[in-house]
Amino acid sequence: MAKLLVLYKKPADAAAFDSYYFSTHIPIAKKIVGLRGYEISSGPVNRLGGESPYHLMAALSFDSVEAIQQALASPEGAATAADVANFAQAGVDMFVCETREV
Amino acid sequence: MAKLLVLYKKPADAAAFDSYYFSTHIPIAKKIVGLRGYEISSGPVNRLGGESPYHLMAALSFDSVEAIQQALASPEGAATAADVANFAQAGVDMFVCETREV
Repeated sequence: MAKLLVLYKKPADAAAFDSYYFSTHIPIAKKIVGLRGYEISSGPVNRLGGESPYHLMAALSFDSVEAIQQALASPEGAATAADVANFAQAGVDMFVCETREV
Repeated sequence: MAKLLVLYKKPADAAAFDSYYFSTHIPIAKKIVGLRGYEISSGPVNRLGGESPYHLMAALSFDSVEAIQQALASPEGAATAADVANFAQAGVDMFVCETREV
């Protein structure tokens, strides 16, 4: 498996962020071919030992890093990436890795 | 569900880090009561749009944030947290949140 980990920084207007994210962004992102799972944080993303810079965490699962790269290059992936600019003005950190259970 | 997301910064000696993490830290961490899943990155943790500060990602699953708090306060959790100092001198970012599938 592989994960696309998306960490959204705290927005100026959390309610507006959430409204857009749930009503518009999730439906766009769920059209991505190869998406196997879509897990998000519910409530605060607390940091241990400090102030958290993040408002929301999303972990999107795919079969492999190659599948993530193909997804990001697809029209649906491009639409999802383009939509991020519509609500994540505070910034976003995105990481990609293969994963395994230990 | 809830996640304890652990992001280890790039160590000076990646081979030594990996050796300690797999042979010593995982067995200590797996003793934590309430741990439902333990997923780690395999290979690089790549950042989209920039240099990644991270070497390894670990996502530990629990039933709830309360279960994570209880786990961290337990002797096994304290032993796991204390062990981090033995191999993660480059630093670590840890986040806790409730999660749900969308």
